[in-house]
Amino acid sequence: MPDTPFPPGASAVSDASGAASGASLAALDDARGDGLSETLISSETVYRGHFLHAKHDRVRLPDGREASREYVVHPGAVMVVPLLPDGRLVMERQFRYPVGMTMIEFPAGKFDPGEGALACAQRELREETGYVARRWARAGLMHPVIGYASERIEVWFADELTLGERHLDDGEFLDVFTATQQELEGWMRDGLLTDAKTIVGMMWLRQWRAGVWPLDWQAV
Amino acid sequence: MPDTPFPPGASAVSDASGAASGASLAALDDARGDGLSETLISSETVYRGHFLHAKHDRVRLPDGREASREYVVHPGAVMVVPLLPDGRLVMERQFRYPVGMTMIEFPAGKFDPGEGALACAQRELREETGYVARRWARAGLMHPVIGYASERIEVWFADELTLGERHLDDGEFLDVFTATQQELEGWMRDGLLTDAKTIVGMMWLRQWRAGVWPLDWQAV
Repeated sequence: MPDTPFPPGASAVSDASGAASGASLAALDDARGDGLSETLISSETVYRGHFLHAKHDRVRLPDGREASREYVVHPGAVMVVPLLPDGRLVMERQFRYPVGMTMIEFPAGKFDPGEGALACAQRELREETGYVARRWARAGLMHPVIGYASERIEVWFADELTLGERHLDDGEFLDVFTATQQELEGWMRDGLLTDAKTIVGMMWLRQWRAGVWPLDWQAV
Repeated sequence: MPDTPFPPGASAVSDASGAASGASLAALDDARGDGLSETLISSETVYRGHFLHAKHDRVRLPDGREASREYVVHPGAVMVVPLLPDGRLVMERQFRYPVGMTMIEFPAGKFDPGEGALACAQRELREETGYVARRWARAGLMHPVIGYASERIEVWFADELTLGERHLDDGEFLDVFTATQQELEGWMRDGLLTDAKTIVGMMWLRQWRAGVWPLDWQAV
């Protein structure tokens, strides 16, 4: 997946990576003239680091006035919910510097340029945990930080796992462990699991296992 | 709540705003020497806009080498799950420029300097929706973007609502509407509700109504 196209609105409507529902809703909103949309006037990059890319745009508000919008441009990411044969989940513990804590998370990572979602999911699962899955299902999409980043995270389920060898990125440190749905839900209730993307994955897991949110599996 | 203290780790361990569980876990990890933590070497502000504040730190990795960390400094926020007497939820539709779409969300907003969490929750609910609640309960904490922002969002439930007058910030445009839990869960399944913080709130709602995640209510 390439860098998010500009302006951000174009990304939501035109890309083909699976956000059809949200994109349709946005298109419908625009068609309706819902009185909420903002349109681009001008844009500049205000910071481009090794990792962060920030923009400052001037926009036209629904009432015709102008305003500033500052946000992080993000290539998008994939998160994997990896299911073991006994029902346990493959999880990671990783120190996350911006929050200063070691966090419990599902495996996840950013798209490489031009990479498809399933390929990214397979790569991140293999590199970070060593697991390879024979069946995959795309559950859905989430937007983790709609106030100040373009990031979107695809949620994929991985089943029929076999364990190989992991290959962490240089300078990447994380522990892999397994947990039951019940353990993870207890940690969420008790404030020990607070990563929002992982909680969204747990919502999908719960609803899928309850038979109310179906998954469409594909063999690879 | 003041700006996030520096370094980020200090925030997790020392603040008193209610993240005791996560903080204890982090403290425990440090005491154990879990081999994952990173420590500050140097820090600089690389961008300070009207809204975004970004830093670039040099850190010491667990293996002794150095690395860069770039992230957004955020004051923290509160999200409100507002319960109507008939069981419906008070929701918002708001155009979110960084993702280029109109999003379905629970009411939420950032802490003003020195503001307590309940005061922030009351203010945001009243300003954005016009509702005032007689009973409040703090459900928990989430971290929406652990890869590149210090943001933490407290989740509060608001009950026994009465409708007053709303007072949007200048330049703020949003629609207020109501929906049932079942409608919201259907939109999540179908990809029409993709805001991660709101999905986390829905997880709390589902688990609380199922009787498995209790809430401790306080009258105000």
